[in-house]
Amino acid sequence: MVNGTEPYSPVHETEGVLALMDIQPVNPGHVLVVSKTHAVHLADLAPELGGEIFRVGMLVAAGLRRSEVRCEGVNLFLADGAAAGQEVFHAHLHVFPRFEHDGFGLRFGPDNRKRPGRAELDRIATLLRDSIAK
Amino acid sequence: MVNGTEPYSPVHETEGVLALMDIQPVNPGHVLVVSKTHAVHLADLAPELGGEIFRVGMLVAAGLRRSEVRCEGVNLFLADGAAAGQEVFHAHLHVFPRFEHDGFGLRFGPDNRKRPGRAELDRIATLLRDSIAK
Repeated sequence: MVNGTEPYSPVHETEGVLALMDIQPVNPGHVLVVSKTHAVHLADLAPELGGEIFRVGMLVAAGLRRSEVRCEGVNLFLADGAAAGQEVFHAHLHVFPRFEHDGFGLRFGPDNRKRPGRAELDRIATLLRDSIAK
Repeated sequence: MVNGTEPYSPVHETEGVLALMDIQPVNPGHVLVVSKTHAVHLADLAPELGGEIFRVGMLVAAGLRRSEVRCEGVNLFLADGAAAGQEVFHAHLHVFPRFEHDGFGLRFGPDNRKRPGRAELDRIATLLRDSIAK
């Protein structure tokens, strides 16, 4: 698509990033923000390019809110890996408008959103700090 | 919380941004990334600070994948505005690990994910380009 082999509807472009319309929008106005260089996973994106993707996402969100498109709120969503729901294996940030009773939502299972105690949160925070420091 | 009035479990800190454990995790290892300065909505964040939030989110995602926490994929999620599911009115990026059959997912209504034609996508893209250029 970004390679020019499929048509797409461009919304915004920077040096490293392209924003274009999602062909199966959650709601009308759903935009994808992608890097121009190929990156399958979040880990394949240079941090600065990731920051640029997010800044373009913010710009699109502000544009949605000012536009004629129905938009009472905005969700940003990124799925990194098949287990996280990634279906297209080029890293992309979803930016889509929301409005009351639009039908979209998050689905939780019985094991989601249990409230651990502070000791457990501290334990995991320590694991993550150590992992980040590696 | 960030003001020091409530306990929290810190994961990472930069000049402008703090990452801390979510007290009601989707899955164990769910982290929130917030700006240290108060910002209710995405539009209240300077672009560079937004980029920093996302870069810290990428760092946390990489840390989750390398850690002992169960993590086969990662979701990044941000809700901007009540209609988008925002419940805490300080802008925050969710970063949470995912694994097969973890119960979490996206819920779609009958009006979501309809496939518009290219002409309709082009029409909305034009509205958004004009709005962004304002």
